[in-house]
Amino acid sequence: VVSAAGPTDALGRVAVVGLGLIGGSLARLLAARGVDVVATDVVAASRESARRAGLAVTDDLPACLAGVDLVVLAVPLRTMLAVAEQVALHAPAGATVTDVGSVKAPVRDAVRAAGLGERYVGAHPMSGTEHSGFEASDVGLLDGVAWAVTVEDAAGVDPSRLAQILSLVTGPCGGHATVLTDDVHDEAAALVSHVPHVLATQLLNAATGAPVHRVARVLAAGSFRDGTRVAHTDPARTEAMVTANAAWVAPALRKVVRDLELVIDALESNGSVHAFFHAADDVRAAGIPGRDGTAARPPGDTGETVELVAGWPAELVRRCLDGEVVVTLDPESGATLLPAR
Amino acid sequence: VVSAAGPTDALGRVAVVGLGLIGGSLARLLAARGVDVVATDVVAASRESARRAGLAVTDDLPACLAGVDLVVLAVPLRTMLAVAEQVALHAPAGATVTDVGSVKAPVRDAVRAAGLGERYVGAHPMSGTEHSGFEASDVGLLDGVAWAVTVEDAAGVDPSRLAQILSLVTGPCGGHATVLTDDVHDEAAALVSHVPHVLATQLLNAATGAPVHRVARVLAAGSFRDGTRVAHTDPARTEAMVTANAAWVAPALRKVVRDLELVIDALESNGSVHAFFHAADDVRAAGIPGRDGTAARPPGDTGETVELVAGWPAELVRRCLDGEVVVTLDPESGATLLPAR
Repeated sequence: VVSAAGPTDALGRVAVVGLGLIGGSLARLLAARGVDVVATDVVAASRESARRAGLAVTDDLPACLAGVDLVVLAVPLRTMLAVAEQVALHAPAGATVTDVGSVKAPVRDAVRAAGLGERYVGAHPMSGTEHSGFEASDVGLLDGVAWAVTVEDAAGVDPSRLAQILSLVTGPCGGHATVLTDDVHDEAAALVSHVPHVLATQLLNAATGAPVHRVARVLAAGSFRDGTRVAHTDPARTEAMVTANAAWVAPALRKVVRDLELVIDALESNGSVHAFFHAADDVRAAGIPGRDGTAARPPGDTGETVELVAGWPAELVRRCLDGEVVVTLDPESGATLLPAR
Repeated sequence: VVSAAGPTDALGRVAVVGLGLIGGSLARLLAARGVDVVATDVVAASRESARRAGLAVTDDLPACLAGVDLVVLAVPLRTMLAVAEQVALHAPAGATVTDVGSVKAPVRDAVRAAGLGERYVGAHPMSGTEHSGFEASDVGLLDGVAWAVTVEDAAGVDPSRLAQILSLVTGPCGGHATVLTDDVHDEAAALVSHVPHVLATQLLNAATGAPVHRVARVLAAGSFRDGTRVAHTDPARTEAMVTANAAWVAPALRKVVRDLELVIDALESNGSVHAFFHAADDVRAAGIPGRDGTAARPPGDTGETVELVAGWPAELVRRCLDGEVVVTLDPESGATLLPAR
């Protein structure tokens, strides 16, 4: 099921710290693509499961970090600072640090507090399931998906480290990358992930807490099943994700409340809700984001190339804000971008 | 793909008026189960498609209604009154009338205005897709699903007509039925269907209307795809459904707003959102409504039987409000009920 992908030899050795759903899936994918990957986890059972799955696993973090060129932090946000401090102590001085978290600015704060700010580039693969833990991980989960790759600001990032992460995403991961500032990522993630999680939770709470909850349960069909699916993911993880991005989630929810109040007022006064239900008609005609794909390359379209000359990170950030995504990166010929669908 | 089901001979002839997604799927299912079913639609192309699918189709409504024992109104709510008036003119005087609409009280109002109130029992199959029209209909769409079967009040319904509809649902449709008053149905439907549709629309509007909408589109993954799926159904149909049930949708949305304001206040003040995210933990442990099934019969469980003696409709309404569902109906042995899962 794992397709061919780009070159892996230039990546060197990769440490994946944390063998949960995402860390486990990433380690499986990199190993399947021939990358020299070594992983670890604080939970012995997860390490054993990963070994049985054929992965190279060390029992402790310092051993995992020895001689690596890239460290992927795949641990919960609450342990990020403590783990980053260990990475600062034990990883080679030149190693680049990245992560796979769903909120970027708080991770950068933690990594910077550990003294790794100059070596850090953020990353966030846009994939997941309602399950968690290594047992739920899968070699295909992160294969070919969209990633966000984040910088604090384009002028401040180390271009070679950014290139390293883009090579990881577009090479062995077979994916494409949108290069964003942390803030743009966190604002957009609030809209397409964190607010959906809050509303799914609200739907589940309201239906199951109502006097007619037994009837509601019997009547629940497609719209309720889909609308509440992510409310069945680990609520502690959702709470942590939403809380970590409170700065963007709160104003996005304020807008939800304002918009809903207009709908309620119209429903209560026999007014029109036509504009509300038809506001996104253009988008409906264009297909469903996240279902109809975002970066399928049209046959024969070779994309636009950005050479890796001075200022290229800023050029990628500018283009990605406009909806393009990086599909390949080659140190000599440059980065290839395509418009997202 | 269509499994065996209960007896069909007692149903007599059934007219399905309207060959959209639901009417088309019902006509296909009844025909596959050997029911004498005849259908029609005002759109010639839909009639032609249905004929090509092997269904018995008449060009006009009076011909469709000739000699039938049961009329299923599968037309939009806005045309319900006009169609019901035609049914009152052309259907046999003894024929029972039902429908498949997603809101019950307004349908009863229309049917009563046409003079058919005494002959009407409401019905609502809890299934659908994001598509519409006969081309999207499928013999399996309504096979074995949950139905709501509604009465204005249990004392007022004609028991023989209620039995007729329950036989349809639990017999050739292979489904199970929750017998409700119109109001309980419409309140529960607001919670598990109409509010989810509003929130899905809101999510789509907010993400696609934001300054970072191009980035949001690239980052959209599972939670956004699921959370907005029903926002891609025909918005005019959704608007009509929500507007028709405004009396229940508006207060349910007011509760959404109140709950979200508590979440926002907590996020803005570093307060706790723990209770919000964990309110439905019991439900999470019990499985996902609409995904994990509602009425799977445990092996060896033959259910409880309610004999069809005086007052049986009230007994069914009482039990269904408590979460039981009707799985079989036999004029001699009675109705069998099982607890919904």
